[in-house]
Amino acid sequence: MASLELTSIRSPRVKSARRLAKRAFRQQDRRFLAEGPQAVREALALDQGLAELYFTAEAGTRHAELIEQAEAAGIPAMRVSGEVMAELAQTVTPQGLLAVCTFLDVTLDAALSRAPRLVTVLSHVRDPGNAGTVLRASDAAGADSVIFTDASVDPYNGKCVRASAGSLFHLPVVIGPRYDTLIPALKARGLTVLAADGIGKHTLDDLADDGSLARPTAWVFGNEAWGLPEEVRALADEVVRVPIHGKAESLNLATAAAVCLYASARAQRVK
Amino acid sequence: MASLELTSIRSPRVKSARRLAKRAFRQQDRRFLAEGPQAVREALALDQGLAELYFTAEAGTRHAELIEQAEAAGIPAMRVSGEVMAELAQTVTPQGLLAVCTFLDVTLDAALSRAPRLVTVLSHVRDPGNAGTVLRASDAAGADSVIFTDASVDPYNGKCVRASAGSLFHLPVVIGPRYDTLIPALKARGLTVLAADGIGKHTLDDLADDGSLARPTAWVFGNEAWGLPEEVRALADEVVRVPIHGKAESLNLATAAAVCLYASARAQRVK
Repeated sequence: MASLELTSIRSPRVKSARRLAKRAFRQQDRRFLAEGPQAVREALALDQGLAELYFTAEAGTRHAELIEQAEAAGIPAMRVSGEVMAELAQTVTPQGLLAVCTFLDVTLDAALSRAPRLVTVLSHVRDPGNAGTVLRASDAAGADSVIFTDASVDPYNGKCVRASAGSLFHLPVVIGPRYDTLIPALKARGLTVLAADGIGKHTLDDLADDGSLARPTAWVFGNEAWGLPEEVRALADEVVRVPIHGKAESLNLATAAAVCLYASARAQRVK
Repeated sequence: MASLELTSIRSPRVKSARRLAKRAFRQQDRRFLAEGPQAVREALALDQGLAELYFTAEAGTRHAELIEQAEAAGIPAMRVSGEVMAELAQTVTPQGLLAVCTFLDVTLDAALSRAPRLVTVLSHVRDPGNAGTVLRASDAAGADSVIFTDASVDPYNGKCVRASAGSLFHLPVVIGPRYDTLIPALKARGLTVLAADGIGKHTLDDLADDGSLARPTAWVFGNEAWGLPEEVRALADEVVRVPIHGKAESLNLATAAAVCLYASARAQRVK
């Protein structure tokens, strides 16, 4: 284990990790930050997933096996003071382990080459916590990939990474396609494109009833406040709403997405 | 419209509203705070729902009809300075309208007297944002009531009120029963009690397949981190898990609850 402890928040190493809190620097370095033992474990499980590891003395003792595994793989693992960890971490109570990870996203072609049956598209989703929760729900529902359009939040944003609870590492993520080329590409791969929006004519139940949910499907989810733009809805095969049985005006984005994705997962599995 | 503007954060009126940010004072006064035009509208729609209304000059112009409606109903409506609103509101960017509302919760007997078919129980749920999101999803799925056990967060907590997006005003809420008297009471009313927990033997799909989801059901959802205690699971008719098709370890509480509630809503409506 490293015998020296980094104690200066002005050290070049700390500065180069710290700046990954900003999107522009993440894109320049193609690296992002992920906190906690679960993230370290996930990054280690991927080939070249973990670039650097920072840990406090306490976390180094508690998670000695992770530090050893990183060092055995030739990954720089650095012990840092509590002050340095507080500077690097983006949470109020940092867990003492911080991974600098290499970008994971794949091209649209790579993601669609594996004959996907369930795909999530986030279009104009701005809240990183919502995006991470949808990523986690997509993973749980067995989605084959998650696509963030060019107008959506960065999946490597710290809040998104945390809310995804590891799912960012689990399934292929695509970043940046424009909806006007993306939606035709999804259709060309045989996916039915369903736009989830409260103004949809048909409900999720209608599509479950008539069997169309069983088809390979790409779900498009829109902005938290104003849903999907007309141009996106116009390109979809169908605009679908989650039925509201009570007096609520709507569901929040992540819960609506989970309900849609699980309805597809079930329809695709029922014989 | 009130011609005087309250400008002192030390005025007794402001202090008496401000202290409702604390649970102990809410319980003492049986009043809570709700921000924004939607909450004011919801509270006005209920008999005796709105106790007092605070508004900034700007919001008073933008929502003049709400102020007039409150004044016509004899409800004190007070114009306040931006500083006072910032003191009263619990958000970073207050919307300029703050309602002091009277407690809405009903007794367990009252909630169960209406032959409920879908009930949500929150047991040991600690995060107010999660609780509010489950409340909203319960409303959307057509639940007949939401029950917060004695070990759960206060539904009148400001974060819960906001996350519920008005649903707190829409359906009967019960506060405080203990699970050991509650679960037998639910069963005595003919409700099947399903405990949602990742360790369940049966999946949601199993119960949809064998028709048991179509029965009148009370869903019990547990703590964000550690699920439901053994004692609660033991009293339920069945412990049920949402199937995880991918690599995620679990779903977050609110998305899992939405998936379960919508599965019940659908099963109860399919002929």
